[in-house]
Amino acid sequence: MIWNPERYRAYEDHRNRPASDLIHAVGDQPFRRIVDLGCGPGNSTEALIRAFPQATVTAIDADPSMVEAARKRLPGVDVSLADLSSWEAPEGVDLFFANALFHWVPGHMPLLERLKAKLNPGGVLAIQMPDNLDEPTHRLMVETAREGFWKQAFAAAGLPKRAALPAPADYVETLSADGADVSVWRTTYFHRMENAAAIVDFVGGAGLRPYAERIRKEAGEAAHDAWFAAYSAAVSRAYPPLADGSVLMPMPRLFVLVRKG
Amino acid sequence: MIWNPERYRAYEDHRNRPASDLIHAVGDQPFRRIVDLGCGPGNSTEALIRAFPQATVTAIDADPSMVEAARKRLPGVDVSLADLSSWEAPEGVDLFFANALFHWVPGHMPLLERLKAKLNPGGVLAIQMPDNLDEPTHRLMVETAREGFWKQAFAAAGLPKRAALPAPADYVETLSADGADVSVWRTTYFHRMENAAAIVDFVGGAGLRPYAERIRKEAGEAAHDAWFAAYSAAVSRAYPPLADGSVLMPMPRLFVLVRKG
Repeated sequence: MIWNPERYRAYEDHRNRPASDLIHAVGDQPFRRIVDLGCGPGNSTEALIRAFPQATVTAIDADPSMVEAARKRLPGVDVSLADLSSWEAPEGVDLFFANALFHWVPGHMPLLERLKAKLNPGGVLAIQMPDNLDEPTHRLMVETAREGFWKQAFAAAGLPKRAALPAPADYVETLSADGADVSVWRTTYFHRMENAAAIVDFVGGAGLRPYAERIRKEAGEAAHDAWFAAYSAAVSRAYPPLADGSVLMPMPRLFVLVRKG
Repeated sequence: MIWNPERYRAYEDHRNRPASDLIHAVGDQPFRRIVDLGCGPGNSTEALIRAFPQATVTAIDADPSMVEAARKRLPGVDVSLADLSSWEAPEGVDLFFANALFHWVPGHMPLLERLKAKLNPGGVLAIQMPDNLDEPTHRLMVETAREGFWKQAFAAAGLPKRAALPAPADYVETLSADGADVSVWRTTYFHRMENAAAIVDFVGGAGLRPYAERIRKEAGEAAHDAWFAAYSAAVSRAYPPLADGSVLMPMPRLFVLVRKG
């Protein structure tokens, strides 16, 4: 069993890698003004500051605890509490960057068009979104919620659901209408996880959370625990272990990069 | 119709982008000795020299015209004519790099293990391979060869076929057996092409060529032209145009990066 501190540190890579890849795709540019949309605890903001040392990087997030964490991590950086839907994007921006944000914003195409309109000539809109609704982790959230004695708890309020992303051609067609250059790519990272429980843990901080909250609220702690055990067992079956017990978790992400003419 | 010189230059990006992404994933490393395997006309070699200015970069390719082109492009760089199967890999290498090579080498896993064994401690084996056999471009090569009056020409000699790549888990399992850190990811680039004919042109320089050579040799020029027209028509149907007549060509590529402990 080879599971050492170095491999453990690779977990941080799992989470930072997509932002790093997106910054690499933006390329070396003489940008002056950058906004990190949905900055979370500031990892992506920090990477942007490193990559564009000459630029002023500001950040927004809609979650007060994330804003607090980002401010703590990056003293001196302007981090605002703001919701995209009501946020007034500033003029004169060279790069709008959004790492793992827009999959939470259904019908986001008009919003992307408005952001693009605010960019300086030659400016870039660069976004990355998990595109994993068809992965076993996420299909099993839906399936497990429909089975077992807890299913009434979900049926009553409806399943928490993220909308599927638009097709690559939709992004290209819509965002290049005025001559902007649009690149789209989709990367599946095969993350090596310690075991199936680590996969459940990984989604527990994101897609699984609304399910857990719903069943706790509607049916109580015992129902939550039974549902959680059933989901964990299903995930175990869907991700067979390698010889050392670790498992590969494919994690597809869609990237869209718009360069304004 | 927006089809300008800048978009045309993006074609070169289509071909250079995977190598650039692979170099980015290797990261900033104090490497001294790098070998570019299957260097082609030297694009990837040049990118490696730029990324690792302190290193000595040498290159090999099995095609004499490619070696000549690479030497012309990069005077002063040691470019050798060599076939991987008989090539004696040198000791003391920090990075073996192979961009779009190993999909042409069936059963390449033992070869990758031997290359890894030659690496210095902390060294990296970094490879990228087109993984597009299930794309319409490649499925239609097989289908078109089985239909029409030319099918006897292919039936006689068998279809030219690349082997499918091993699964991501196979690379991880085999290449991490001694504690090396192995990352695997698969990126589908959605290349914007001027029209379906440009897609045929794109594969014409690679996967389609053995088909064209086979039918010319077995059945003559008229049969070749009829087969080519049928293939082109099938590709047109498989890649529907966007509003401006351009088409998106999804191009999946598998990346494997091995860091020796």
